[in-house]
Amino acid sequence: METTIRPGLEGVVAASTRLSHVDGLAGELIIAGFALEELAQKASFEETIYLLWHDRLPTLPELERFRQELALRRALPQVTVDLLRAAASQQIPVMDALRMAAATLSLDSPVGDDAQTEAKTLVARFPTIVAAYWRLSQALEPIQPDPALGHAANYLYMLTSEQPNAAQVRGLESYLNTVSDHGFNVSTFAARVIISTSTDLTSAIVGAVGALKGPLHGGAPGPALDMVFEIGSADRAESYLRAKLERGERLMGFGHRIYKVRDPRAVVLAAAAAQMYHESGDLALYDLAQSVEEVALRLLEEYKPGRKLQTNVEFYTALLLHGLGMETDLFTPTFAIGRVAGWIAHCFEQQEANRIIRPQSVYHGAKGRRWEEYGSV
Amino acid sequence: METTIRPGLEGVVAASTRLSHVDGLAGELIIAGFALEELAQKASFEETIYLLWHDRLPTLPELERFRQELALRRALPQVTVDLLRAAASQQIPVMDALRMAAATLSLDSPVGDDAQTEAKTLVARFPTIVAAYWRLSQALEPIQPDPALGHAANYLYMLTSEQPNAAQVRGLESYLNTVSDHGFNVSTFAARVIISTSTDLTSAIVGAVGALKGPLHGGAPGPALDMVFEIGSADRAESYLRAKLERGERLMGFGHRIYKVRDPRAVVLAAAAAQMYHESGDLALYDLAQSVEEVALRLLEEYKPGRKLQTNVEFYTALLLHGLGMETDLFTPTFAIGRVAGWIAHCFEQQEANRIIRPQSVYHGAKGRRWEEYGSV
Repeated sequence: METTIRPGLEGVVAASTRLSHVDGLAGELIIAGFALEELAQKASFEETIYLLWHDRLPTLPELERFRQELALRRALPQVTVDLLRAAASQQIPVMDALRMAAATLSLDSPVGDDAQTEAKTLVARFPTIVAAYWRLSQALEPIQPDPALGHAANYLYMLTSEQPNAAQVRGLESYLNTVSDHGFNVSTFAARVIISTSTDLTSAIVGAVGALKGPLHGGAPGPALDMVFEIGSADRAESYLRAKLERGERLMGFGHRIYKVRDPRAVVLAAAAAQMYHESGDLALYDLAQSVEEVALRLLEEYKPGRKLQTNVEFYTALLLHGLGMETDLFTPTFAIGRVAGWIAHCFEQQEANRIIRPQSVYHGAKGRRWEEYGSV
Repeated sequence: METTIRPGLEGVVAASTRLSHVDGLAGELIIAGFALEELAQKASFEETIYLLWHDRLPTLPELERFRQELALRRALPQVTVDLLRAAASQQIPVMDALRMAAATLSLDSPVGDDAQTEAKTLVARFPTIVAAYWRLSQALEPIQPDPALGHAANYLYMLTSEQPNAAQVRGLESYLNTVSDHGFNVSTFAARVIISTSTDLTSAIVGAVGALKGPLHGGAPGPALDMVFEIGSADRAESYLRAKLERGERLMGFGHRIYKVRDPRAVVLAAAAAQMYHESGDLALYDLAQSVEEVALRLLEEYKPGRKLQTNVEFYTALLLHGLGMETDLFTPTFAIGRVAGWIAHCFEQQEANRIIRPQSVYHGAKGRRWEEYGSV
């Protein structure tokens, strides 16, 4: 046994995966064989899910069937809706509601579905849960899913009760594709640890949602946009950002633990946001964000030369999701709607060649305590 | 970065802990400084929980206050009871119901409790969930918790509606103490991975319950007892067991991955079972189990010489819990009622010196796929 303690398991390689590859130095993200830039803006989210689960894109008939299978599974069991209603009356955070509701999803398949069916049910219902809870927490009734709409379009429809336009749907699909998988991260690893006991898929996914909720998981797109709003107009960007840097504060939306060149997800989402804002005709916020980014990158190079701080995925996530009409509280739940495809793919991969994930611990506590000395009676 | 892939993280030391120490070669289990044999039959379960969480036993006033705090938190939110009722109508497994219901426990503290309060709520309510669901699934109404009873006694009361006698309570407390912690294992590790994102305690515990549900987690006390029942009388033990071994079958209740000498938990639970059965006056099953064990150990030495296969914890768990009137389906949920104390202690320990638990993966998938070639459109 080793005696080196690895509390964060840094540098420990826990799996070989075919699902995604993050190359931070090169600024590359591969998802199931495709460079992100190649996949994100072309695939529908259903195609990306299928790709992750099957390691190939579907044929047209397979895609049509897959779309239908997902669409048919969107409606929630009544007990899940009741739970969301109770949760809304307490105004709990959306991610807490998603975790609670996801845990109930095996309720209408008491004998246990096969894993593929369970997987489709989970993916299909995440948007229904988030949208239903969002509306209930605003004292609005949930919108029933529309099976004629695709996965992304239907999510927007259930949030707003309005049919989204093609540019909005394309923007959301590009976002969901972009966040669908990203190597190992805590939530993905948690899902693999849990499924390694051969438990049900729902248990693994609920564990992953619980991990994603944590503030250290990474990905807090809200503050990046808040900064843009505070700046308000392009001519204020330099003085605002310079003051922030002079105070030694971090600029939210810039810099990433892994990516030392520009985060490929930021590139893709910037393009998706540009397209969507251009089609909407209202470019005010987009132009402001562009100006803020330009000034921020210039000042970061001035204040932190050689650190190569780049715009990260949060910056353009915030811009894109805001442009879709989402409030900040919906950003992480919408991330989960994309990432659940990857979590499930990792669970499948873990099951294909499963080994129970069970590291060791060493003991540094007391020894030889006696009840007579320590006991309270 | 290492290139060795550790799919099960075997031999990787992921933490130093003061909570428990498993020495399989010496047959020793230390729980928070006490040898298991020293602690298990003396402490109340409340004392063991306090010990795990605070690294010392409580004073009498502290213990009294802790008991009251737990007792006051036992009742379930109405929405949790409604969920259990819906689950019972589907006859889902008890562990699934426990996972679903545990996920709702943050519902009546919408602003988020401090971690100690959340911890007490979780520990206090696990027995209420299991007992309520058990009764609902038998078409019986749940029994309200009795704050005058201790944690273990109240669980038995809520299951049966009868006041347990002192020997039964002592038997259950010894069991809960015995399984309260056991170094790293998948459910404990899952809880630490999830809490390492600084998420809420409930999320971590729900993840652990989901992992414990898995058949590979270990601990299947049911089959060990089934074998004893099938044998039925002591004079049939040798022919039954010999036939089983001749067919190359495993004897359930014997052998353990870690313990190569007798599992200390088996020793403690054997004594606890002996005491409880003796006080009950009905020794038939206990004597039969003793005979089966004696013959099994003799035959295992004959058929698998040198393998040192010993009676494991499942054998006496089954005997003890059966003696408390529990059916097999309650064994793993009752294990969870004990282990949740250790899961929470590990979460606290993780939070004290947190580092996010995030191992690496390597990529073996395709590269350079092009949408034109693979796309369905």
